[in-house]
Amino acid sequence: QSIYEKLGKTTRTVDVEVDTQIEQLRETKRRYENMLALARSYANHFLSLMQTQRVLCDQFLELKQKSFLLCDEFHYNAETQRVLVRNGEILLNALHYFISTLNTLCTKTIEDTMTTIRLYEAARLEYDACRTEMELLSPGSQMNEKQDEFQKYKDKYEQLKCDVIIKLKFLDENQTKVMKKQLLLFHNAIAAYFSGNKEALDATMKQFNLKVNS
Amino acid sequence: QSIYEKLGKTTRTVDVEVDTQIEQLRETKRRYENMLALARSYANHFLSLMQTQRVLCDQFLELKQKSFLLCDEFHYNAETQRVLVRNGEILLNALHYFISTLNTLCTKTIEDTMTTIRLYEAARLEYDACRTEMELLSPGSQMNEKQDEFQKYKDKYEQLKCDVIIKLKFLDENQTKVMKKQLLLFHNAIAAYFSGNKEALDATMKQFNLKVNS
Repeated sequence: QSIYEKLGKTTRTVDVEVDTQIEQLRETKRRYENMLALARSYANHFLSLMQTQRVLCDQFLELKQKSFLLCDEFHYNAETQRVLVRNGEILLNALHYFISTLNTLCTKTIEDTMTTIRLYEAARLEYDACRTEMELLSPGSQMNEKQDEFQKYKDKYEQLKCDVIIKLKFLDENQTKVMKKQLLLFHNAIAAYFSGNKEALDATMKQFNLKVNS
Repeated sequence: QSIYEKLGKTTRTVDVEVDTQIEQLRETKRRYENMLALARSYANHFLSLMQTQRVLCDQFLELKQKSFLLCDEFHYNAETQRVLVRNGEILLNALHYFISTLNTLCTKTIEDTMTTIRLYEAARLEYDACRTEMELLSPGSQMNEKQDEFQKYKDKYEQLKCDVIIKLKFLDENQTKVMKKQLLLFHNAIAAYFSGNKEALDATMKQFNLKVNS
């Protein structure tokens, strides 16, 4: 049936509304996976920067001990890097929470609906194959038997379409809720960190029930 | 002479004060080279983070177009990353200036004094070798000739010691001045960037006559 469809030699059952929603979900998943990959590389580069800040802080402290004339300069530089590392650890926790939640959304929540969609698409194929066969059957011959089979495939298809519609609806509500929260966390934690606002950073972590220390 | 010294079979001329200063300079050079390497990896990690911020900003903008319900969330996230990239470019210019100046200090300014030190050390070795030979000479034999040679090596050694002392003094003043300025720049640019203070960042760039755009 699949090959006949590709060759345009048969008709396929199409539910424009459901199929459009499925296409949109695939698109959303692709975009979220992209965002997840970016968030991961964000956290990685940020961690590398933090590690350099930590070593640089130690280096400044060592130089402070050795250079009498530049003692102050090395001191305030060490202090600044130390604060950046301390706040950076908090931001990193927020980034990891964002990544972990987005990962669950992509690999579990959306994937669960995707599985139902794949079953629905397989059922649609079986249903259309049976329908095509029946159309090609000479009248009278085994018609009743085929009719029962056809009804079975039709019921299965309708049932799965129903499942998909329900899952899509719940997923849409759920993913919007999750993303709304996560995007707020991502923004607030980053905005607080990059404005040097430790209080706002702590408040954000508290708001999202996140531990400040890993 | 060098081998005899290592075996402890001969004496060497030592100027404690100059030799201590030379040792300190070697130590300072080692530490500055270390700091330079750290500053380079700082700038590299920061650049990687900025590149991710730039792509993430575009991704947020794309998602903003596609997600009606999360339009606001994607908008303010894109905006924040955009500002971070814009300010990050300024900070990166400051970091590059710090790195370039530190590089000149290590590979040119300090190295120039190091070259004189190496000449001084070679002259000290020749001078001590000649002195040892003279001490082993039987009295009377070629003494006058050797005496002249000895005086020549002694003069060369004294002259180079004098050069080293002067160079060390100027280098010390110069490197303190350069580092004082650079450490202030490094601190102020980083402090301004990580407190989200665009005005302070611009003011720092102006103070050090640096271009805001590369």
